[in-house]
Amino acid sequence: MVYVTRRSTFSASHRLYNPALSDEQNEVLFDKCANPMGHGHNYILEVTVRGEPQSDTGYVIDLKQLKEIIKREILDKVDHKHFNHDVAFMKDSIPTAENIAKVFWKILEPKITEGKLHSLRLHETENNVVEYRGE
Amino acid sequence: MVYVTRRSTFSASHRLYNPALSDEQNEVLFDKCANPMGHGHNYILEVTVRGEPQSDTGYVIDLKQLKEIIKREILDKVDHKHFNHDVAFMKDSIPTAENIAKVFWKILEPKITEGKLHSLRLHETENNVVEYRGE
Amino acid sequence: MVYVTRRSTFSASHRLYNPALSDEQNEVLFDKCANPMGHGHNYILEVTVRGEPQSDTGYVIDLKQLKEIIKREILDKVDHKHFNHDVAFMKDSIPTAENIAKVFWKILEPKITEGKLHSLRLHETENNVVEYRGE
Amino acid sequence: MVYVTRRSTFSASHRLYNPALSDEQNEVLFDKCANPMGHGHNYILEVTVRGEPQSDTGYVIDLKQLKEIIKREILDKVDHKHFNHDVAFMKDSIPTAENIAKVFWKILEPKITEGKLHSLRLHETENNVVEYRGE
Amino acid sequence: MVYVTRRSTFSASHRLYNPALSDEQNEVLFDKCANPMGHGHNYILEVTVRGEPQSDTGYVIDLKQLKEIIKREILDKVDHKHFNHDVAFMKDSIPTAENIAKVFWKILEPKITEGKLHSLRLHETENNVVEYRGE
Amino acid sequence: MVYVTRRSTFSASHRLYNPALSDEQNEVLFDKCANPMGHGHNYILEVTVRGEPQSDTGYVIDLKQLKEIIKREILDKVDHKHFNHDVAFMKDSIPTAENIAKVFWKILEPKITEGKLHSLRLHETENNVVEYRGE
Repeated sequence: MVYVTRRSTFSASHRLYNPALSDEQNEVLFDKCANPMGHGHNYILEVTVRGEPQSDTGYVIDLKQLKEIIKREILDKVDHKHFNHDVAFMKDSIPTAENIAKVFWKILEPKITEGKLHSLRLHETENNVVEYRGE
Repeated sequence: MVYVTRRSTFSASHRLYNPALSDEQNEVLFDKCANPMGHGHNYILEVTVRGEPQSDTGYVIDLKQLKEIIKREILDKVDHKHFNHDVAFMKDSIPTAENIAKVFWKILEPKITEGKLHSLRLHETENNVVEYRGE
Repeated sequence: MVYVTRRSTFSASHRLYNPALSDEQNEVLFDKCANPMGHGHNYILEVTVRGEPQSDTGYVIDLKQLKEIIKREILDKVDHKHFNHDVAFMKDSIPTAENIAKVFWKILEPKITEGKLHSLRLHETENNVVEYRGE
Repeated sequence: MVYVTRRSTFSASHRLYNPALSDEQNEVLFDKCANPMGHGHNYILEVTVRGEPQSDTGYVIDLKQLKEIIKREILDKVDHKHFNHDVAFMKDSIPTAENIAKVFWKILEPKITEGKLHSLRLHETENNVVEYRGE
Repeated sequence: MVYVTRRSTFSASHRLYNPALSDEQNEVLFDKCANPMGHGHNYILEVTVRGEPQSDTGYVIDLKQLKEIIKREILDKVDHKHFNHDVAFMKDSIPTAENIAKVFWKILEPKITEGKLHSLRLHETENNVVEYRGE
Repeated sequence: MVYVTRRSTFSASHRLYNPALSDEQNEVLFDKCANPMGHGHNYILEVTVRGEPQSDTGYVIDLKQLKEIIKREILDKVDHKHFNHDVAFMKDSIPTAENIAKVFWKILEPKITEGKLHSLRLHETENNVVEYRGE
């Protein structure tokens, strides 16, 4: 079993805001992350796939194909976008890194057919990182 | 003469859009950077001050004070903000990294009184960086 | 289950020295790390907390609160200090990265009440890292 | 149980080519990685050893000794070499990062006698990483 | 005047060998860099262009276009190649980082027509970097 | 003219303290950097040499030799040391990064005989950097 990781980056905006709560409650919960016009990040996404290297290629998964899947399914839909306004699949979630990672998992997991999706790590800043493993 | 650099980070949104041009022209010029709701970055700002180390401290400038100046004059006004909507001093400029660096210079230069401001470097992504030296 | 990591840094000195052994034995065991006046590092501490994102916030743990806990319990006590002389909770341990990580765990584990402490990673240099998971 | 990681770097060339297949099939499978004269990378190798810190040293394993083992068993044989031509222990494998990591494991695992080898991570580029844990 | 930098990466092989000298002299001069089959690096190339931001865009140079120029003129010709065998424009030079930077300058300088090429920085490893400014 | 940079790292302790002043004045000036037992850093030192590449080697300076000079003249004397107590050539200076860089320059400048020493950059933390160019 080998774990193969592909790192990608994208730039996006988000606003942390729970529409079920008042503006005051949102400010208490989310502080400056609740700023109405939003703010943004250079996100780093690490996608890890596990499996046995195939005998003819020595690859768990061809990273050119994994790169293509991540681009088509994720980056093309979130890069240079605003999570709250432009990203259909995030419409029902508060776009915290935790929730973004869980939604990305649902999208990517069925598309990975060589090996199995093992982990998604999403860096929001150089100090804040989340990981989701489908558990 | 010694050059002292303080690195800071902030997260903000921007949209590249020239109001003197049509939407079509903006899309041609700025492509996905013209997305109406904006997108964002983890900016890295490097402020360099030059001068002679002072004999009693060995400092060109006390970095705790430089840190405080950068926080008060810049970070408190741009971190977790949208450059186009929330930042008064950027209201008349297209918020490219080039223009942001030039405006930051105008704000910081008179506030640095130990040594002289030498350079501002602004990293928009890990691949795109601008530098302004007041020339 | 999502794993959330907060990265912090601090600068400290230490000396590797076992008082139960002779100076010669200490030099054999610890080499230049046994230098009597000590030496120092820019440590990087990564604290990982695991849990379910809460439905009202989308957070496993509010990173502003986690940051505050790490600052109050750890950074305020070790930053710009000498582990062997200034840090009460390290008085009985040789301050290797391994031992520092285990002591940090004992301090932080009961303070984390949203989610559970999952892992501490402590980088002593860019080439040397330890991780402790409470096992 | 503590996990201790030592990071090393080396520079090497490789060519991805399966001699059981035609040149055309190799180009389809490996694309520009099949370039006959090869290409190269600054590989980063992270070796993780797990164990209990020893009471007299506070070390799981003396990192000076681990560094020496990695140098003697791995780096001296692959640094500034071409994996396909110069590295005896890779002669029968396509030198993908997956296969390199598995062969490094076979070499290093019996040499680590303080603690146990837990994981090898091999970074081929800043975006492509593999990990092998002996499973 | 603003300085704009675009960072790119490529992976290539090279061998340091002066055909005017004997094999023994080459080994003395270039040591393990003279290994006949070559070795490789993940090179990082930083291209800096200086100029005044244009009033309609706020750009010194559109980084999408700079990226395209670098890709077409440099990366497509050196990425996943061997400098000594596959790169026509390096045929007459020993492919040290110094010489590569100077040849890249000759190629890129006339292609940059918005602003002027100011500096090329080429990182061969994380510890070895060269810069050429056309002087 | 090409600029060649070699990056090195070392770990050391220091205390900022001016013996001509009272303890109270030192605390006001240097705050937590005046802690009596000192604290430490993983310093990064970047040494830049400028010159013309030599026609037989393509090198401005052989980086193996530059590495050896830096090790012998600097690293062997400061790595795993306390600047205030163990480093003879710093005895008369407050060991700020500014002063360390200036003293390193005096030591290294006459030892560099291929090319000329152009710049020393010393990173004290990831946020604080000084540069000295002998001006």
